[in-house]
Order: sequence, then structure tokens, then C-alpha cells
Amino acid sequence: DDHEAMDSGDTWLPSLTTETPQEGFALAVTLSQKGVATTQPDAEVRKAKRSEYAEDPDSLIAASHVIAIHFQTIAAANDYWRE
Amino acid sequence: DDHEAMDSGDTWLPSLTTETPQEGFALAVTLSQKGVATTQPDAEVRKAKRSEYAEDPDSLIAASHVIAIHFQTIAAANDYWRE
Amino acid sequence: DDHEAMDSGDTWLPSLTTETPQEGFALAVTLSQKGVATTQPDAEVRKAKRSEYAEDPDSLIAASHVIAIHFQTIAAANDYWRE
Amino acid sequence: DDHEAMDSGDTWLPSLTTETPQEGFALAVTLSQKGVATTQPDAEVRKAKRSEYAEDPDSLIAASHVIAIHFQTIAAANDYWRE
Amino acid sequence: DDHEAMDSGDTWLPSLTTETPQEGFALAVTLSQKGVATTQPDAEVRKAKRSEYAEDPDSLIAASHVIAIHFQTIAAANDYWRE
Amino acid sequence: DDHEAMDSGDTWLPSLTTETPQEGFALAVTLSQKGVATTQPDAEVRKAKRSEYAEDPDSLIAASHVIAIHFQTIAAANDYWRE
Repeated sequence: DDHEAMDSGDTWLPSLTTETPQEGFALAVTLSQKGVATTQPDAEVRKAKRSEYAEDPDSLIAASHVIAIHFQTIAAANDYWRE
Repeated sequence: DDHEAMDSGDTWLPSLTTETPQEGFALAVTLSQKGVATTQPDAEVRKAKRSEYAEDPDSLIAASHVIAIHFQTIAAANDYWRE
Repeated sequence: DDHEAMDSGDTWLPSLTTETPQEGFALAVTLSQKGVATTQPDAEVRKAKRSEYAEDPDSLIAASHVIAIHFQTIAAANDYWRE
Repeated sequence: DDHEAMDSGDTWLPSLTTETPQEGFALAVTLSQKGVATTQPDAEVRKAKRSEYAEDPDSLIAASHVIAIHFQTIAAANDYWRE
Repeated sequence: DDHEAMDSGDTWLPSLTTETPQEGFALAVTLSQKGVATTQPDAEVRKAKRSEYAEDPDSLIAASHVIAIHFQTIAAANDYWRE
Repeated sequence: DDHEAMDSGDTWLPSLTTETPQEGFALAVTLSQKGVATTQPDAEVRKAKRSEYAEDPDSLIAASHVIAIHFQTIAAANDYWRE
């Protein structure tokens, strides 16, 4: 459960560094979900709502938007994985 | 009460520097809530509304979005916690 | 009245530099309100609407979002108040 | 009429440089309005709608948001008017 | 037709460099429209909807918002057209 | 199927580097869609909804917005394709 990890002293975000852009994108998804979990800590409620917004195009675009912001941050943190 | 801290001379934001990305994320959450508290200073009203928007997926995504912006700022302030 | 200050030659934004992050956050709030006041210059109308949106969670999150953007700008202007 | 200026060869945006942050903010307002005028070139329609959205808090916050983005760009262009 | 240009091998975006800020703004408008055209490739549908959203203040502000993001990118690409 | 590629070990995002701005824009479109596909992995559901939001101007503008954010990231990653 993400929320318990956040409340307890568990480390869930040790670094913004990733090996590849693709892993950076996955981390962006995680951060987006974390932002939601912070406001709604009850995983059961989140799961119940998921089926709802996952079929609403506007919600899907809004979720994609948050991922885009986090990906921008992570990409900068990794100097864009330039070779 | 956050708002009283803001109105009084209390310091609630001494620095953007954090030890870890995870603490930076927690600070981003705090700043997002501060933005809300500035517009609606009454903690009782905020609490009453919380149960409402915490079950609305679009509100949750919007809250996650604001956290993402603040996290971007804080990450830059910490030079992305690069080692 | 903010609007009169904007219309007249009065200076309301002499600098983006602030002593502390907390003052920077307060300036971000001011800029957000200025953006609203520019579009709706009538302070009476703004005050009348305030009681409305200050109880709407989505409006509060949207206001917090604008503050976050301005805070990002101000933080960069102050080189993140790094010591 | 802004739109005619845009269509004709008239120069309405010679530079992003301004003397002061306050002038930079005013330029941000202009750019926001230009973005609207580009999509709705008819000044009469824009004027008719203005009375509508200028009383809708969410529209006012959305307008303030666009100003915030442009102000961020202009502030960077002016190196934040650092002395 | 923009979409055909995108699908075919035609070049519609050779560079982000423009002579002036004003041309940069025009390019930002083009990129915003391209983003719409990518999702709705049928120019007839887009034209039919245009009369609809061009009279909706919130749609106009949203369109102006996207232009603002692209203008930020283009301004950075041109080093803000500093002299 | 994008989602399978994401779940499996397949590489779909090897780099943010592109030859041209136009290819960068196409990659921004891909990332936007990936953000949607992450939240709604069922391609059939996405296809069913597409016809819906592709005719809604506000959805189209919102999709264009997400593309704009990703394009900003990719443009920076490519140093704006400056010659």
C-alpha cells in the first residue's frame, strides 16, 4: 500500500535518476499516482473510482497531463539521458 | 492551523532545500495545501469539503497536478538531488 | 484597491526578489490575484464571487495551481534562496 | 483592433524585454489576450463574451493561469530583472 | 491540409528559430493547432467545431493556454530574441 | 499494443533525441498517448472513447495541451535543434 509507505518511514523515492527515458516515464507515472494517494489515502476508494475515471476521456487526458509534468522534471534531473 | 501561521509572523517555509527527493515531494504537498489555505483560510470549511473532493477522481488528479508543479520547483532548487 | 494601482502609474511590483521563500510564496499569491483583478477590475464583483469559489474545492485547487506557477517563477528569480 | 494588427504586417510584439517586472506583467496580459484573439478574431464577439466570463470565478482563475505562464516566459527573458 | 502534411513526409516544422518574437508567437499558434489536428485529423470536423468553441470563453482561454506553453518553448529556443 | 510493450520488457522509448523538431513533435504525441494508455490499458476501451472526445473541442484542446508539455521537454532535450 503506497500510503502506508508514505506515512511510515519507508523510502519510496530514493532518487530521480533512472537508467533510461523509459524508466523515467514509469517513475513519472508513480509520482502522479503518489500525488493522488496523498489526497485520498484509502486504496479501496481509489480502486473504486479508478473504473470510473478510466473510462472518462477527459480524466485520462488529465492524468496524462500530470505524468507529462513529472516526466519533464525527471528528464531534467537525468540531463535528458543524453549520450 | 496553517492559516494562522501564515498570518502571524511564524515561519512555515524556511527553505526549499530537502535531504531527499521524498522529503521534497512531501514539501510539494505542503505548498499545494498552503495555496488552498490561502484562498480558503477557514480550516473547518476546508475539512468539510475534503471528504467531497477526495472522492472525486477529477479533483484528485487536479490536486496531484499542483503537487507536480511544486515538486518541479523544489527538485530544481535541490539540483535534483544529484549525487 | 489593486486595480487602481495597476491603472495608475503606481508601482505594485518593483522586484521579484524576496528575502525568504515564504515571502516569495506571498508574492506568488499577490501575482495570482493580480491576474484575476486584471480581467475583473471591479473589486466589488470579485468580493461577491469570492464567497462562492472559496467553498468550491475545484476552484480552490485551480487557485492553488496558479500560485504554484508564479511561485516557480519567483523561486527561479531568487535562485531558490540557496545559501 | 488586435486582430487586424496580427493579420497585417503591423508589429505588436517587437521584444520580450521590459524595463520593470510590472511592465513584464502587463505584457503577459497582452500575450494572453492575443492568444484568445487569435482563436476568436471578432472583437465584437470577444466583448460580448467578456461580461460573461468576467463574472465566472473559474474563468477568471483560468485567465490568471495563462497570464502566469506568459509572465514566467517574460521573466526568464528579462533574467528576472535582477539588479 | 495540415494533417496530410503530417502523415506524408512533408516538412511543416523545419526549425523553432524565428526572426522575431511575433513570428515566434505565430509559430506557437501553429503548434497548438497541430496538436488538435493530430487528435482529430478530419479538417471538416475541426471546422464544424470551431464555430462552437470560438464562442465559448472557457475554450478560448484554454486555447490561449496551449499557445502560451508553446510560446515558452519557442522563446527559449530563440534565447528570447535578446539583442 | 502499446500497453503490452510497456508491461513487457520491450523498449518503446530508447531516447529523447530526434533528428528534427517535427520528429520531436511526433514523439511528444506518442508520449501523450502513452500517458493515457498507462491509465487505461485496454486498447478497445480507448478506441471506443476516441470517437467521443475527438469531436469534443475541449478534449481536443486538452490533448493538445499535453502534447505541448511533452514537446517542451523534448525540445530542451534536443537543445532546441539549434544549428
